[in-house]
Amino acid sequence: MKKRHAAGKPLFDKVAIIGIGLVGSSLARVLRRENLARQIVACDASAAARAAAKRLRLVDRMVSDAATAVAGADLVVVAVPQSAYAKVGAAMRPKLKRGAIVTDVGSVKLAAMQALVPHVPSDVAFVPGHPLAGTENSGPEAGFAELFVGRWCILTPAKGTAAAAVTKVREMWRRCGMHVETMDAAHHDRVLAITSHVPHLIAYTIVDTVAALESRMKAEVIKFAASGFRDFTRVAASDPVMWRDIFLNNKDAVLEMMGRLYEDIALLQKAIRNGDGELLHRVFTRSRRIRRSIVQAKQA
Amino acid sequence: MKKRHAAGKPLFDKVAIIGIGLVGSSLARVLRRENLARQIVACDASAAARAAAKRLRLVDRMVSDAATAVAGADLVVVAVPQSAYAKVGAAMRPKLKRGAIVTDVGSVKLAAMQALVPHVPSDVAFVPGHPLAGTENSGPEAGFAELFVGRWCILTPAKGTAAAAVTKVREMWRRCGMHVETMDAAHHDRVLAITSHVPHLIAYTIVDTVAALESRMKAEVIKFAASGFRDFTRVAASDPVMWRDIFLNNKDAVLEMMGRLYEDIALLQKAIRNGDGELLHRVFTRSRRIRRSIVQAKQA
Repeated sequence: MKKRHAAGKPLFDKVAIIGIGLVGSSLARVLRRENLARQIVACDASAAARAAAKRLRLVDRMVSDAATAVAGADLVVVAVPQSAYAKVGAAMRPKLKRGAIVTDVGSVKLAAMQALVPHVPSDVAFVPGHPLAGTENSGPEAGFAELFVGRWCILTPAKGTAAAAVTKVREMWRRCGMHVETMDAAHHDRVLAITSHVPHLIAYTIVDTVAALESRMKAEVIKFAASGFRDFTRVAASDPVMWRDIFLNNKDAVLEMMGRLYEDIALLQKAIRNGDGELLHRVFTRSRRIRRSIVQAKQA
Repeated sequence: MKKRHAAGKPLFDKVAIIGIGLVGSSLARVLRRENLARQIVACDASAAARAAAKRLRLVDRMVSDAATAVAGADLVVVAVPQSAYAKVGAAMRPKLKRGAIVTDVGSVKLAAMQALVPHVPSDVAFVPGHPLAGTENSGPEAGFAELFVGRWCILTPAKGTAAAAVTKVREMWRRCGMHVETMDAAHHDRVLAITSHVPHLIAYTIVDTVAALESRMKAEVIKFAASGFRDFTRVAASDPVMWRDIFLNNKDAVLEMMGRLYEDIALLQKAIRNGDGELLHRVFTRSRRIRRSIVQAKQA
């Protein structure tokens, strides 16, 4: 278990969390536990999510609109699906406090910046962020304070962003137990296309291919899922809205990586068709080495 | 933990395990622990594997050739890569005891039967089997008695196989903690193509696509693997020889399922290109339901 920090001075006076889903509610739990904010306000468009957050006493105040939530906040964390960014940005803009920091948790950083930058006044700092943490579950009940522990958070601030703002956001995620790294937004989107988006697309597809099988076959696939398919279904169980938005927002990088993948699949398929065991063995041995690098990097 | 069975009469007098890798050595451990055989002999072509098996005292006798191992055995378990089946079959044929049972643990049943049936005399019963259990590790040190617990084992005996022989093999796997099911070999190969072989092929491919990235990108993919890619690398870390043999032996079913998968990938790719969020959302929601069926079937 993670050691608790001494309850020193909170990092923020008032934090507004926009969207109290898996990530937003997990962050709220850490802010509370680590005493990182004197006051936490959250908003969510869903009445059910608001009710759950109230029942779980996740925040000090739960409201339905972003404008009310951000008023007077030192830090605003946008944690809604990316398709709602522009709307949320427009709603909160007039109420953002001078000197406040806006950050987000979206999976596609170029699109996140495109959607939010026009709504961030010049006296407010914007530090786009992406905590690489999640589960197959969604909603405020699915959140938990340990979600972030040992995982990476990538920040993609534009050049010229106030260093103090970046430092504060980095410190918040560090206190959540994350390793924090800064990189260019476009590079982030390409790295994530291959580590996350393409694997999810493939997992969704293969699970959907199974959904289309005749019913006896489908029943047996589910019964015998343990032999590989199961791992794909775990990946393919994440929030459909979030993933729809990811693919719509990271289209170019995803399609480029899919193109590379296609070439490699075609190669293996041809090797199978031609009975080229040597090529198969070579590729499978190389894959095992990559796996070992990941185990060594303690990301397994 | 699994309850130990009372040490009654062993199921077999002498068991020969051909190939003391992950599965063979795990089975040896269970045979010992559950007192299922009075004597266990194993053979392996690898001197290193033989030395490890001796050091771990997995069996009563460790030999280098199949003929010596099977002499006098009541049960012969073939647990070598499928490319070695024909050679092993030819070697053991003259020494198989009248009334003995031969079984195997190979992943492709039609090919297993094709390779072994010609080497099984008419007074010996052949019960092809496939325990759906494994890890990313291989070799005798990687085995453990709990490998099989709660998993499925599929038997694919040809029509006319002695019922008593099928019952004994079923009982052995049941004592390993497995659920045992019998089905037609061709059907088995199609079900496994989609639950196991195609997912592995895709996982191998995507990991290999990463291996081909420029080095900075590759380093970052490994660093940030936690976001989906990691699950693919786990699947892609299994034994290269075993998997080469699977694809060579189950070519038709794998290529057919790959064809279906291609169509579905093309559909999603087009949806991304055209910004068709509705289609993406529909497919992702359907995938989540399949995942839930698997969780309900307790195969997650």
